[in-house]
Amino acid sequence: MSHPHPELGPPPPLPEHGLRIVALGGLGEIGRNMAVFEFEGRLLIVDCGVLFPEPDQPGVDLILPDFEYIRGRLDDIEAVVLTHAHEDHIGAVPYLLRERRDIPLVGAKLTLALIEAKLTEHRIQPVKQEVVEGQRHRYGPFECEFFAVNHSIPDALAVAVRTPAGIVLHTGDFKMDQLPMDGRLTDLGGFARLGAEGVDLLMSDSTNSEVPGFVTSERDIAPVIDDVIRTAEKRIIVACFASHIHRVQQAIDSAEKYGRKVALIGRSMVRNMGVARDLGYLRVPPGLLVDSREIEEWPPEDVVLICTGSQGEPMAALSRMANRDHPIRVAEGDTVLLASSLVPGNETAVNKVINGLTRWGARVVHKGNALVHVSGHAAAGELLYVLNATKPSNFMPVHGEWRHLRAHAKLARLTGVPDENIVIAEDGVVVDLLDGQAKVVGAVPAGYVFVDGTSVGDITEVALKDRRILGDEGFISVVVVVDTTTGKLSGGPEITARGSGIDPDSLDLVIPQIERALQDAAADGVADVQQIRRVLRRTLGRWVSDSYRRRPMIIPVVVEI
Amino acid sequence: MSHPHPELGPPPPLPEHGLRIVALGGLGEIGRNMAVFEFEGRLLIVDCGVLFPEPDQPGVDLILPDFEYIRGRLDDIEAVVLTHAHEDHIGAVPYLLRERRDIPLVGAKLTLALIEAKLTEHRIQPVKQEVVEGQRHRYGPFECEFFAVNHSIPDALAVAVRTPAGIVLHTGDFKMDQLPMDGRLTDLGGFARLGAEGVDLLMSDSTNSEVPGFVTSERDIAPVIDDVIRTAEKRIIVACFASHIHRVQQAIDSAEKYGRKVALIGRSMVRNMGVARDLGYLRVPPGLLVDSREIEEWPPEDVVLICTGSQGEPMAALSRMANRDHPIRVAEGDTVLLASSLVPGNETAVNKVINGLTRWGARVVHKGNALVHVSGHAAAGELLYVLNATKPSNFMPVHGEWRHLRAHAKLARLTGVPDENIVIAEDGVVVDLLDGQAKVVGAVPAGYVFVDGTSVGDITEVALKDRRILGDEGFISVVVVVDTTTGKLSGGPEITARGSGIDPDSLDLVIPQIERALQDAAADGVADVQQIRRVLRRTLGRWVSDSYRRRPMIIPVVVEI
Repeated sequence: MSHPHPELGPPPPLPEHGLRIVALGGLGEIGRNMAVFEFEGRLLIVDCGVLFPEPDQPGVDLILPDFEYIRGRLDDIEAVVLTHAHEDHIGAVPYLLRERRDIPLVGAKLTLALIEAKLTEHRIQPVKQEVVEGQRHRYGPFECEFFAVNHSIPDALAVAVRTPAGIVLHTGDFKMDQLPMDGRLTDLGGFARLGAEGVDLLMSDSTNSEVPGFVTSERDIAPVIDDVIRTAEKRIIVACFASHIHRVQQAIDSAEKYGRKVALIGRSMVRNMGVARDLGYLRVPPGLLVDSREIEEWPPEDVVLICTGSQGEPMAALSRMANRDHPIRVAEGDTVLLASSLVPGNETAVNKVINGLTRWGARVVHKGNALVHVSGHAAAGELLYVLNATKPSNFMPVHGEWRHLRAHAKLARLTGVPDENIVIAEDGVVVDLLDGQAKVVGAVPAGYVFVDGTSVGDITEVALKDRRILGDEGFISVVVVVDTTTGKLSGGPEITARGSGIDPDSLDLVIPQIERALQDAAADGVADVQQIRRVLRRTLGRWVSDSYRRRPMIIPVVVEI
Repeated sequence: MSHPHPELGPPPPLPEHGLRIVALGGLGEIGRNMAVFEFEGRLLIVDCGVLFPEPDQPGVDLILPDFEYIRGRLDDIEAVVLTHAHEDHIGAVPYLLRERRDIPLVGAKLTLALIEAKLTEHRIQPVKQEVVEGQRHRYGPFECEFFAVNHSIPDALAVAVRTPAGIVLHTGDFKMDQLPMDGRLTDLGGFARLGAEGVDLLMSDSTNSEVPGFVTSERDIAPVIDDVIRTAEKRIIVACFASHIHRVQQAIDSAEKYGRKVALIGRSMVRNMGVARDLGYLRVPPGLLVDSREIEEWPPEDVVLICTGSQGEPMAALSRMANRDHPIRVAEGDTVLLASSLVPGNETAVNKVINGLTRWGARVVHKGNALVHVSGHAAAGELLYVLNATKPSNFMPVHGEWRHLRAHAKLARLTGVPDENIVIAEDGVVVDLLDGQAKVVGAVPAGYVFVDGTSVGDITEVALKDRRILGDEGFISVVVVVDTTTGKLSGGPEITARGSGIDPDSLDLVIPQIERALQDAAADGVADVQQIRRVLRRTLGRWVSDSYRRRPMIIPVVVEI
C-alpha cells in the first residue's frame, strides 16, 4: 500500500519515558494485525497475523507484515501477546518464530492450543505463557492486564499495557454480545475501571465502525440454524470458518436433536475442532461423529456435514461439490447452509458456489436470505460504549481500512475525544505517547511481504506487475541465434505465443518483417545483443499493436553461438 | 459456462405451428441478454447485449452471445426488438450488424437514439423502426405489442409476441415503481388484459427474485441526494451509470437549487446526456453546464461534477481521483456520492475507490450508508403482481443466474403455475411452445465469445487458461540451439523467467542439470525436437517444483540451425 504521509521521514530516537507504537499491519487494511510497543529499548508485540491476497495479487498465498523494523532487534522482544486465534492475528507467528524460536507467546488457553497445533505443522515447538482474563503479568517494562472480550472465537482477550508512559488499552477484535452463547461477556466493567484510573490511549477495533447500531446476538441465530436443520429433507451441508467453534456447536446440537450424524470435512476444521473438544470448548455427544470417508454410506436424511469453504475457496470441498468435482454429489432436496460472513473480496467466488449448488437442486441458505450469521465485530453503537467507558485521553483506531478508521475517529470525536488527540495512522506510521499526548513522529517501512509456495519475500511488486501483464495479455517470445564469429543471424526467428489470443498461423506474417528489420539493423552496423533485442522487441510489439490492438509481454531472446 | 443439461442433444426440427425460443444469453448469468424466437422458419430477436468479464476472464473486454446458431440464417431475421438501452441489452448489436447491416432495429425513441449514437462510433448506420407503448406491429409472422415498463432508464418496453402458437410476454428489465419520477408506470393493466386474453408463456426478469418485498421508489431517494448536495461543504462529485438519466436529473435539479454549476465527465456520460437532452428526456437549465476542462477554475463550493466510474473501473475518472492520478484533486471537505448499485464482481474495486477517496479526506456517501440508490429490477413482491396479473400457462424465468432463476420459478409455483409448465433453461437450451405447452427439446452451442482489443472470438478458453496460469505463476522459458547436421547442442541453454518470483541468480543452478539431461538424452539417441523439448520441460519443471514448490508455465524452445 502506498503511504498516506509521504512527508514522514524516519522517526527521531524515542525519548526517555516515551512509549512508541508502530503497527506493522492492520491499519489501512483488514488483516495482518501486528502492533509493536517499545519502551526503554524493549519491545512488546500484540498479534502477528496474515492478510489474504486480493485478485490483483495473483498467485500469492499469504501476505505477512514486514519484519524488517524489528529484525535487528529480535532479542529485545519480551513477548508476543496473541489476543485470539484468528489467522489475521496469529497467522504470521510461524514466520516470526523462524527468525527467533524462543519468543514467548502469551495468550488464553484456546488461543495457545490452536497456535501450537499450527506450529506443529511448521515443526516449531513454541515457548508459551497461558494467561486468564483478570490477570496481570509483567513482560520486561510492560505490565499487561487481560480483559475478557466477546468475539466469533472463544477466549478472546483485550490487553491493557501499562508503562511509566501511561496506560494503553488495545481491544483486539471484539463485539459486545449481551447474551453470548458461552456467557463470557466483554468486560465493560473492567474497561470502565481502567477508564477511571485513566486510559492514556485507546486502540480499538474499527472493522464495523461504519455499521450503525448493534450486532445481533449469536443467540438469535441459533433458532434459525435449528430450523434449517429441522426442516431439511435430504443431506445438510453446513459451511463455516474452521475456527468458529460456537457455530459448529450450534450445528452439532441441532444435528443431535434431529437424529443426524455429523462429519467434519476439511483439514483445518478437523484439527481445530479436535483441539476445541480436547480442551472442553466444544461438546460432542459420544457416537455422533462419523468419519467423513464413511459419510456416503449413510442415508442423506441422516447426516450433517460441517465443512470449510464458506468463502468460495476453489480448492475447498464446498467449491468442488458445486462443480461436481467431489465424491459428495449435491442433489435435489439437499440443503447447504453458509453460516459465515462474506469476507470482502470473496463475493464473486461465493456467488459461483451458490449458483453451482443451486443448479444441482440444493437449497442454499446464506446471510443474504436468512439470519444465519452475525458479525464478530462491534458496530458503531457498541464502539460508543467502549469509548464512553474508557474515556481515553488519546484515541487511535485500529483494525480497519481507511473508511473504517475515519468512521471510528468520528465516533471518538462525538464522545468528546479532542481532534488533536485522535491519531489516524497507517501501517508503519510511528506514534509516540509522551507526556500524555499521542503524536505521529515518523514512519518506517511496512510494505507487503508475499508468501508464495515455500518462499517468503521472493515475490516482489515487479514480479506481481509482470504477472498482471501476463495474466491480462499473455506473452510472445521471439528467439534468434547469432553467430558471434560471423556476426550473422544463423537461426530463428522462432516465435512462441501463449495467452495472447493471437492466431498462431498469423505469426508467420511477422517473421519476414523481423528478418527485414534485422537485416536493416545489420546494414546499419547493429551487432550488439542488447541492440538486437531492442529491434526484435520493437518490430514484434508494433506488429501486435497494429494488427490486434493488444499489448502482450514481448520477450526477445538472442542466443549467441 | 458448462451445460446443466449434459444429456441434451441438438433439437428436432421445429413442428409446424410451434414457436421455438432459444436464449443465447441471459439465462444462468446477468448480462448479454438475447432471445431468439422462431416461427415457420422466420426469426425475431429480443435484445442483443454484452456481458462484462469476471476476474477469472483476464484481459477480456466484453463477452458476446455466440451468434453461431443464427449465423447461417441471418436473412431469416425479421427484426431485433430492443427493450431498453442498457449495455446488457444492446451492447452486442454492433457485432450482430457487422454480420448483416440491414437487420431492422425496433425500439422506443430513446433506446434507438442511444444505440444509434453507439453505432456511429462503429461507423454503422442502422435501419430503425421506432415504436411506442400501446402499439402493435407485425414483423413477418410475429405480431408484437409493446407495453411501458418502469426501469432505471427511460422508455423501457415489454413486448408480447403473438404467433399462431400462442402469446408470449417478455418483460425485458422492469420494476414497478408506483410513483416514478417521469410518471411512466409499468403497464400492469395491459399485462392483466393480456392475461385475460391468455398468456401462453411468460418470460420475466429474475434479477431481484431473491429479494423479498418491494423496491423503494426513486422518489424516496431524491430528498437524500438533495440533502447531500445541500449540506456539502466543498466540491461534490456524483458518480452514476452513464445511462441513468433520472439520477443525473436529480443531481442537476439539486445543483441548480443550491447555486452550483455542473460538469459532466466521461465520454459515455457526455454522449448519452447529450442525446437525452436533445430528445427532451433530460432538462438542463441554460447556463448550468460548464466544460469539464474549466471546472478547476470554479471554487469547489460552486460545482457538482457528474461522472462515470461508480463501479470502480480503474481507467475511469473516479478511480484516478482516488489514486491522485487525475487533475481533479479530491481534498478534505469534498463529498463523493456513489449514486449507483454495486454490480456483483466489482466489490473489491469499489472498496478501493471508497478507501482512496476517504484517505484524501472526502466524505463518501454510498448505498451502504445512505439511501442514494434503488434497484432497477422488480423484487419478489412485485414479480408476484406480474405473475398474478398475467396468469401464464407456462413460465420461463429469464435474466438471472441459477439462484435467481430458481427463486423466480418458486414464486411462479406459489402463484399456481404447475411445476411441469415451469421451464428453467440455461443459455442455448431450446424451448418449444407447442399446443399450449412449453418444453425443453434440445440444446445448441451458446458459449462465450470474447472481445479483446479489436478481435472477436480469437480468445478461447485455452488462451484464458494460459493467462490464468501465467497470471498466477509466471513462466520460465529455456532455449537451446541444435545443429541439425551434427545433431549436437550448439547454443544455450538460455533461460528467461518473468513473474515467477524465482531469484534470477538461482537459475544458474539449473543450467548444469539441463546440460546433463541433454547429454544423457543424446547418449540414449534422442535427437528429435519434440523429445528434446520434453527433456527440457521435465528437467526445468522438476527443479522449480522441488526448489520452490511452484508451477510456472515452462516453455521449452529448440532452435534448429
